[in-house]
Amino acid sequence: MAEARWKFWGWGRTDEAATAEETGRAAAFYRGLGAGLEERATVPSVDEIELARPRLVVPASLEGMASSEPYDRLLHTYGKSFPETVRSFRRDFANAPDLVLHPESEAEVAAALDWASDARAAVIPFGGGSSVVGGVEPAIEGDFAGTVSLDLKGLDQVVEVDRTSRAARIQGGIVGPALEAALKPHGLTLRHFPQSFGYSTLGGWIATRSGGHYATLLTHIDDMVESLRAVTPAGVLESRRLPGSGAGPSPDRLLLGSEGALGVITEAWMRLQDRPRHRADAAVAFPELLQAAEAIRAISQAGLHPSNLRVLDPNEARINGAGDGSFALLVLAFESADHPVEAWQARALELVRDHGGRVLPDTSAAQAWRTAFIRMPYLREWLVPRGVLNDTFETAITWDRFEAFHDLVRSRVESAVREATGRDGLVTCRFTHVYPDGPAPYFTIHAVGDWPRLLEQWAEVKHAASDAVIEGGGTITHHHAVGRDHMPWYIRQRPELFGSALRAAKHALDPAGILNPGVLVPEAELPA
Amino acid sequence: MAEARWKFWGWGRTDEAATAEETGRAAAFYRGLGAGLEERATVPSVDEIELARPRLVVPASLEGMASSEPYDRLLHTYGKSFPETVRSFRRDFANAPDLVLHPESEAEVAAALDWASDARAAVIPFGGGSSVVGGVEPAIEGDFAGTVSLDLKGLDQVVEVDRTSRAARIQGGIVGPALEAALKPHGLTLRHFPQSFGYSTLGGWIATRSGGHYATLLTHIDDMVESLRAVTPAGVLESRRLPGSGAGPSPDRLLLGSEGALGVITEAWMRLQDRPRHRADAAVAFPELLQAAEAIRAISQAGLHPSNLRVLDPNEARINGAGDGSFALLVLAFESADHPVEAWQARALELVRDHGGRVLPDTSAAQAWRTAFIRMPYLREWLVPRGVLNDTFETAITWDRFEAFHDLVRSRVESAVREATGRDGLVTCRFTHVYPDGPAPYFTIHAVGDWPRLLEQWAEVKHAASDAVIEGGGTITHHHAVGRDHMPWYIRQRPELFGSALRAAKHALDPAGILNPGVLVPEAELPA
Repeated sequence: MAEARWKFWGWGRTDEAATAEETGRAAAFYRGLGAGLEERATVPSVDEIELARPRLVVPASLEGMASSEPYDRLLHTYGKSFPETVRSFRRDFANAPDLVLHPESEAEVAAALDWASDARAAVIPFGGGSSVVGGVEPAIEGDFAGTVSLDLKGLDQVVEVDRTSRAARIQGGIVGPALEAALKPHGLTLRHFPQSFGYSTLGGWIATRSGGHYATLLTHIDDMVESLRAVTPAGVLESRRLPGSGAGPSPDRLLLGSEGALGVITEAWMRLQDRPRHRADAAVAFPELLQAAEAIRAISQAGLHPSNLRVLDPNEARINGAGDGSFALLVLAFESADHPVEAWQARALELVRDHGGRVLPDTSAAQAWRTAFIRMPYLREWLVPRGVLNDTFETAITWDRFEAFHDLVRSRVESAVREATGRDGLVTCRFTHVYPDGPAPYFTIHAVGDWPRLLEQWAEVKHAASDAVIEGGGTITHHHAVGRDHMPWYIRQRPELFGSALRAAKHALDPAGILNPGVLVPEAELPA
Repeated sequence: MAEARWKFWGWGRTDEAATAEETGRAAAFYRGLGAGLEERATVPSVDEIELARPRLVVPASLEGMASSEPYDRLLHTYGKSFPETVRSFRRDFANAPDLVLHPESEAEVAAALDWASDARAAVIPFGGGSSVVGGVEPAIEGDFAGTVSLDLKGLDQVVEVDRTSRAARIQGGIVGPALEAALKPHGLTLRHFPQSFGYSTLGGWIATRSGGHYATLLTHIDDMVESLRAVTPAGVLESRRLPGSGAGPSPDRLLLGSEGALGVITEAWMRLQDRPRHRADAAVAFPELLQAAEAIRAISQAGLHPSNLRVLDPNEARINGAGDGSFALLVLAFESADHPVEAWQARALELVRDHGGRVLPDTSAAQAWRTAFIRMPYLREWLVPRGVLNDTFETAITWDRFEAFHDLVRSRVESAVREATGRDGLVTCRFTHVYPDGPAPYFTIHAVGDWPRLLEQWAEVKHAASDAVIEGGGTITHHHAVGRDHMPWYIRQRPELFGSALRAAKHALDPAGILNPGVLVPEAELPA
């Protein structure tokens, strides 16, 4: 039997959904914030959405990979952000791409870009479409003839495995589970598990500097890239496979985080891991987040390199069934394919206790959190049509500024929620990744909005959150990427002259400016 | 009493030299290769060198930082490469800069660049001048009015220390020992010790992607850069201080490795370490390099992260007084400011023994090597005027290709030595840094040349070595940088489209093309 198809309005496949228990827990929590939870909109169906006539026609040579099927165009209209979900439930697909192209080889990608450059069609590279920052929506300004979503999931092979160097050559369109399944017979793993793992691709991870499994050291996909290959409108760019180099600025680092605006990542040699055989886990309670943060700073600066070193503030723990709201939960784990990790864990637990942590008798709280984390994306399509404003944003900040930053961000966002909705909401915080010089805090907004005004309410709150992050000294994104949603703050954050350099580089690789216009390098910035 | 001044023809200060014991050991070795060792040239003095009249005159506002003193011009003519030493002993300073500028603030750097852009003066940023790849020689083609060496050692302060995040804001012109001395009262260290440590600067390390103390993890300076600030002809570029970010391609990574061609690095926030208190060292003998390499691969892939994990092949050990030529020497060390490292060391030694290594009773061989390593640069000015061709080159390669690569490079270079000199030489190999996916091999050429033909002989051998490195799949440099010497091979190595992007970026930051012309972005490549 064929698998159910992917939802165009929400997370995952059409036969997947939040369970009654999951929606029940969410309902109880949001009722506590004053939500009525009446269902104001139903799941959209393909038939009820009227799409504009496609403005583009491909030449015969591309017909085999082109689709203007309504479902295909709907699926490629949006990523999985909060406002995109709202608009899906409102049946607003005004920005649907004119066409979806499904190349199955690098030559087909190149042919698509050649045609698009000539036809002045804007091209949006599309992996799993899991963007939560408006990275894949064809919301294109400028004088383009139309928009194309370039779905890369046809490039889905692990092409070559080098067991000796622990690396593999992998096509950019492969999704997480297929990638891991292909590596497993070799005893290897990429061990990159973003929350989107099941519905995102290697090329997407690279293009967005995705953050994954490891809380320390190999936090971003960046350091796992040994070399890469990309098709640009100006030709193919392939870097040399090297374990390290000092020959000029790194070519790979220009494409890491390029968000489809510089080229299409068709292939990469990725550094792999042996599958872990040794493990040590602990869950630790702290009276509050800041005290746990001090323990985390100590462990991070001790050079122990745990695979997991994450913390949830008391409310975040409670909401996810990982606590009663009276303690912050620190999750600590070491893993190794090579050696028992007790010595590492013992020292980390000493540091935890020195900082006032109470090691819990088991790790059930940590497991509850992990399950909630993986299942979280499925809740959105239940919450949104019920008027709940539930979104997340993430950043990074040095330790010296963390406390003031956390206070600033929370208070500004809670004020914005009151201002926008007329009700009190809640802002919770956890750490997703940790560096010796600072954490990557991840904030969740829990608020009750009003269905008719939900988009505007979200925009107000998002604006306040982004302002606070930038004014407080953080980054507009640690691992969600810039997309269209973060552009105004990205422009404020990045050095202006780096913007000039990037614009010039884009013009060299994409002279017609067709690649993901509006992202990273706004059209207005391109040379005339 | 004032310190002795820096030699313009060799390493270090004029009151420093190789000891009689050191030259005696070198003499015995090269006599074994057939060297006569007659001294064919004496150390040059300032008086005997005729310099061309400076072609540039600075405006009154820059006079305070400008120098056309002969010593200053001589000191800024060359780095410390083999051919530059030969040309120094030949009194060939035809490419001396017209002027040396000594700014003491960022504003003075900016003023210097403003003037130079208008005057069409080529500007070569100069830190310690320890380049071994022709990175600082004013060998400038094109229609420039003259050449300026911009000596940044006046920007020598540790401006601000953040003990909490373990980071410091440091000016680019500070040399290694002063940097460490300023951090020591805070209990902190950058722990970046390239061989050039005493005579190189932070800005130089960043501009050349220097490799340092750590054999694993923090190998290059790259990962220690939290943010940086550079003056370009187009203005100041400053990145945000962040422990991690995913907001577009990293601005810092564009300047890391930019070799003075994109901007002048005036300041950086650097990630620091606590000073280590726990240590475990071992020296291990292996029958040969390839067997030791297997042990190193195992340790590197085990995730143990030793601070030292280096190997010398049997001849390299012998030449450096660290063995009798019958065994390869592996040097292994763990260090920590936080915890005893016995568990780490125990597992690494298990792996060493599993791979046939014999742990030596003490670490005296490793210490002998370390001393020889630090003292090595002082030997060149003794060897060169005696007709010895002694140079090094370094690279990186994945493990699967290492054995074939090592064979290819050694045999090609040994052939080239025979061809160029008519005598057998010796090529030795060690690893300077190690990654899970491959080592960074470092080769030393020991050959006996002929004083009158020494430059041509060197060029033949260097050409063969660079060809072999590129054809074998390596990088033209892992941590010595590109400079002028590696340009032809860098052009072959880098993706052509990355060259286009870099050229465009340079044009945005340095529209007049005055910064270190010929390095990374050849003039011929700039837009007209």
